[in-house]
Amino acid sequence: MVEQVQILLPKFPRGFHLITHLIEENLPPLPDKGILHVFIQHTSAGITLNENADPTVRTDFETVFNKLVPDGAAHYIHMFEGSDDMPAHIKSSLVGQSVTIPISNHRLNPGIWQGIYLCEFRNNGGRRRIVMTLLS
Amino acid sequence: MVEQVQILLPKFPRGFHLITHLIEENLPPLPDKGILHVFIQHTSAGITLNENADPTVRTDFETVFNKLVPDGAAHYIHMFEGSDDMPAHIKSSLVGQSVTIPISNHRLNPGIWQGIYLCEFRNNGGRRRIVMTLLS
Amino acid sequence: MVEQVQILLPKFPRGFHLITHLIEENLPPLPDKGILHVFIQHTSAGITLNENADPTVRTDFETVFNKLVPDGAAHYIHMFEGSDDMPAHIKSSLVGQSVTIPISNHRLNPGIWQGIYLCEFRNNGGRRRIVMTLLS
Repeated sequence: MVEQVQILLPKFPRGFHLITHLIEENLPPLPDKGILHVFIQHTSAGITLNENADPTVRTDFETVFNKLVPDGAAHYIHMFEGSDDMPAHIKSSLVGQSVTIPISNHRLNPGIWQGIYLCEFRNNGGRRRIVMTLLS
Repeated sequence: MVEQVQILLPKFPRGFHLITHLIEENLPPLPDKGILHVFIQHTSAGITLNENADPTVRTDFETVFNKLVPDGAAHYIHMFEGSDDMPAHIKSSLVGQSVTIPISNHRLNPGIWQGIYLCEFRNNGGRRRIVMTLLS
Repeated sequence: MVEQVQILLPKFPRGFHLITHLIEENLPPLPDKGILHVFIQHTSAGITLNENADPTVRTDFETVFNKLVPDGAAHYIHMFEGSDDMPAHIKSSLVGQSVTIPISNHRLNPGIWQGIYLCEFRNNGGRRRIVMTLLS
């Protein structure tokens, strides 16, 4: 059985943001077991799972990703969409554009401390579209 | 319902290449909704989604990945398969060996600008094998 | 059809470890075709696929990931769980917390040289929980 829900997130500033609640509140009743695929329809943003408790983790994510793939590096050719565009594409492929989460006992079962992060890599990314597909 | 198709890609040179058309032309008619799992049976290449319009994006991917994980670094122990082999393995795990794409209204639904990239990390990777699994 | 198995891995030291056999010996008989989703319920460890033959590949993974995201870097704010905690979270999102592997002819079909790696990014990560979901 397949169910699918498409949502439009509110606009977030550049950085890593917990969106678990926005995902969960848009889901239908969950089956006994299955998987949930959460997909972002963009390649200058990403979706990942990480620690949901301490906000400094998300601050450090932003710092570290900017050091790994800096804005406006001299070796980028693709520059006409802004100095934050090419690094956003690279970061998007590093973290990925989707997560797949097991469903157990009618609940998402990612572990205790796991939250779903929107990784907004653009300075002005705007509202991002998410496709959630539930297989059971 | 599960359908599966295995294909052998043509040989590509080292770099990032759009293969969306090669994937789509080998798919059966798509269901109303579901997911498509595209998997590469190799660990010195990768599969990712990214921008499909401007070829300079793919050039910059090659530049940036080579800076992140350089060929022939002095700290590699695994060298006997060539100076491009160990970095290829690392890059493969950084981008991943598969993507999962939602299917909506009988079409792949990755977003407007998303293309499927073959990430060829070897100098002479040869022809790569892909397993596509369709769940609906 | 969905089947799900949850297992607790033995404790592994920091590093990259082949766990293919631990996954396979806990699976039910596999269907003719489908996918297996292997998910780790932690965000300071990861799951990836890579080369299963030469152990020096896994040694080099540890070296390279430590260079990409060093322990105790001066720019980390999140430090109270130890100098290895923040880099573990970053590495976990770089490699990801799950892999999805095609099933063909009643067997996992990842390719000849592919092994499933547990990526243990903590110095004392303890036993890690895995959720395996089989869709067919």
